[in-house]
Amino acid sequence: MSVTAPQAFEAAGVAVGLKSTGKPDVAVVVNRGPRKIGAAVFTTNRAKANPILWSQQVIVDRVVEAVVLNSGGANCFTGAFGFQTTHLTAERAAELLEVSAGDVLVCSTGLIGTGDEEFRAKVLEGVEQGVAALSADGGQTAAEAIMTTDSVSKTAVVSRDGWTIGGMAKGAGMLAPGLATMLVVITTDADLEAIEADAALRRATHVTFDRLDSDGCMSTNDQVTLLANAASGIRPDLDDFTAALTELCQELAVKLQQDAEGASHDITVEVVGAATEDEAVEVGRSVARNNLFKAAVFGNDPNWGRVLAAIGTTGAQFDPYDVDVSMNGVRVCTAGGPDRPREEVDLTARALHLLIDLKTGDAGATVLTNDLTHDYVHENSAYSS
Amino acid sequence: MSVTAPQAFEAAGVAVGLKSTGKPDVAVVVNRGPRKIGAAVFTTNRAKANPILWSQQVIVDRVVEAVVLNSGGANCFTGAFGFQTTHLTAERAAELLEVSAGDVLVCSTGLIGTGDEEFRAKVLEGVEQGVAALSADGGQTAAEAIMTTDSVSKTAVVSRDGWTIGGMAKGAGMLAPGLATMLVVITTDADLEAIEADAALRRATHVTFDRLDSDGCMSTNDQVTLLANAASGIRPDLDDFTAALTELCQELAVKLQQDAEGASHDITVEVVGAATEDEAVEVGRSVARNNLFKAAVFGNDPNWGRVLAAIGTTGAQFDPYDVDVSMNGVRVCTAGGPDRPREEVDLTARALHLLIDLKTGDAGATVLTNDLTHDYVHENSAYSS
Repeated sequence: MSVTAPQAFEAAGVAVGLKSTGKPDVAVVVNRGPRKIGAAVFTTNRAKANPILWSQQVIVDRVVEAVVLNSGGANCFTGAFGFQTTHLTAERAAELLEVSAGDVLVCSTGLIGTGDEEFRAKVLEGVEQGVAALSADGGQTAAEAIMTTDSVSKTAVVSRDGWTIGGMAKGAGMLAPGLATMLVVITTDADLEAIEADAALRRATHVTFDRLDSDGCMSTNDQVTLLANAASGIRPDLDDFTAALTELCQELAVKLQQDAEGASHDITVEVVGAATEDEAVEVGRSVARNNLFKAAVFGNDPNWGRVLAAIGTTGAQFDPYDVDVSMNGVRVCTAGGPDRPREEVDLTARALHLLIDLKTGDAGATVLTNDLTHDYVHENSAYSS
Repeated sequence: MSVTAPQAFEAAGVAVGLKSTGKPDVAVVVNRGPRKIGAAVFTTNRAKANPILWSQQVIVDRVVEAVVLNSGGANCFTGAFGFQTTHLTAERAAELLEVSAGDVLVCSTGLIGTGDEEFRAKVLEGVEQGVAALSADGGQTAAEAIMTTDSVSKTAVVSRDGWTIGGMAKGAGMLAPGLATMLVVITTDADLEAIEADAALRRATHVTFDRLDSDGCMSTNDQVTLLANAASGIRPDLDDFTAALTELCQELAVKLQQDAEGASHDITVEVVGAATEDEAVEVGRSVARNNLFKAAVFGNDPNWGRVLAAIGTTGAQFDPYDVDVSMNGVRVCTAGGPDRPREEVDLTARALHLLIDLKTGDAGATVLTNDLTHDYVHENSAYSS
């Protein structure tokens, strides 16, 4: 059901030849409800694509009428011409929808440096076709149109008492090849103030997408957008809404992890006993970015020494000789020394639960990552050739 | 000629079965000159192996008589028993050499968690045999005894007017599998004060080994030691000595890079136009640690977009739309946009020179790294199995 699950949203996905496969490559999502609230979070990469630069201006007044998304080209580092392309995309959509161009977000994904005349013409054609194809059950084709190397489209829906949140996502955090990107559009018919939508989105993404770290490589195009239209007429408690939004974001984040390029393991790095939540995240991320540990997991090797070596590079409070590590429930390291034999750990399943107890405080956090595989290397070396 | 190239140093490498191949696995280096100056730098990983914890105490008084090194076991996270093994190693060597155990450095390399009774017995046997085999031309066998997955032994010699520096190294910075380590021993017959040896070593390693970053994974056992014995009777100018030492360290660093596990490209990341040297290093390291860029190089793909995306994650001063990038002399990106066609870049050779101009200031730095390959994944996944 995707982004059209909540009331009064329309969407479409159309094919205009940006993808050589002929599959859908331009998506349009339009808010048809009584309110036009928008909130968005963007990549923190200082090298930002043109659609990010544009969308950061659009979101300032927290009013969003529509989102146009394309796959088949990131429109990043394409100069003034590329920015004009984004601007023209918003203007064409605004004209057809009879709204202001300043209320149209644009998202692009694909190879950096792609954004020539042909790209522009196809995207604008996609806007025309997409607006013409808008429908209240277009959420699924929109989700398909933003796929690049994704093997499946990724959608999620969470419903509560009378209101609904729907979402679609593509990519795998910072993993997707060519620095193609993670794009997420979330819609809701709940009645939210703009500032509430913004707060809920930041709180939800902070503990979900922000803790998905497939390969440590931050995209130039990442964007997560929330559109709220009040069509349900129901004003939820903000904490309830945030909890539901967090559940939806986590479901999408796990789907991104499970479809990560070339991965053969989904690794859940759970850090407990940390002094602060930030330190737990720092420790989790250091392990999630350790190529040696990730390659060992690929080889079904429960190499806890590499986990401790990764923790040792952080600034988190801990005693290297008082850290416990378990893998899939087997305590392989107690107090910084060997415990159960590594042979007891079964890593043949795709899911690996890595539990790290820093024994310093009461804070914790979980970071999602993947292993480092032959297929990861292959797919990321062959992407642009 | 290795560590016995300078006057009045003896060394040996012996085989005691720590390696399943039967190759030499324990090395001893002894200073037989008039002065016993020692300086050392250690891994900054907070998870440190027992030999590091021991050696950090030994080096405090800057007097070093001998270094004992073993491959075939890192003696890291092996508890109190492991620390006692290191202590016993120094004591046995001291007894045989008739010096103080507090003047004997110990270095170990191999799998983390290895350090049981059998390991201890073999290392102590290695000390006996090694001391018995000491000779003024034992530098080469010593260099062989510290190899783990190295394909060649790594030595270097630099001579100036009447004095000489010799060195041996193993591993590849933070790349070697199992978090086996980079170990370096450097000797000189120059006459240096302890504080001069320390200053020269820190200055030299800061711009050489510290800028070798094969895979971003920091070892628990890294150690670089300089022994100075004044046997030449010559007291060089400190700047001259530091320059010669830097030359030797750089030669060894390049040899480590060239033998990096599974690598198919040696990448020299040269950053110019930076505001400060630290920022140039930060930018170089961010590129050196970007898996997407490294996988692209493996595929002979001059993917400059991934370079800019990596730079964008740093805090360095630069304008993303005023950065130039060249690969092997071909300017592929000018002012943050495409310049020469990527087809003009030939990446078939092993060496890649990546030049990044931040156009912000006059500072620069060079970081050495490698590509991310199938063989890297394979060798690091299969290491302990």
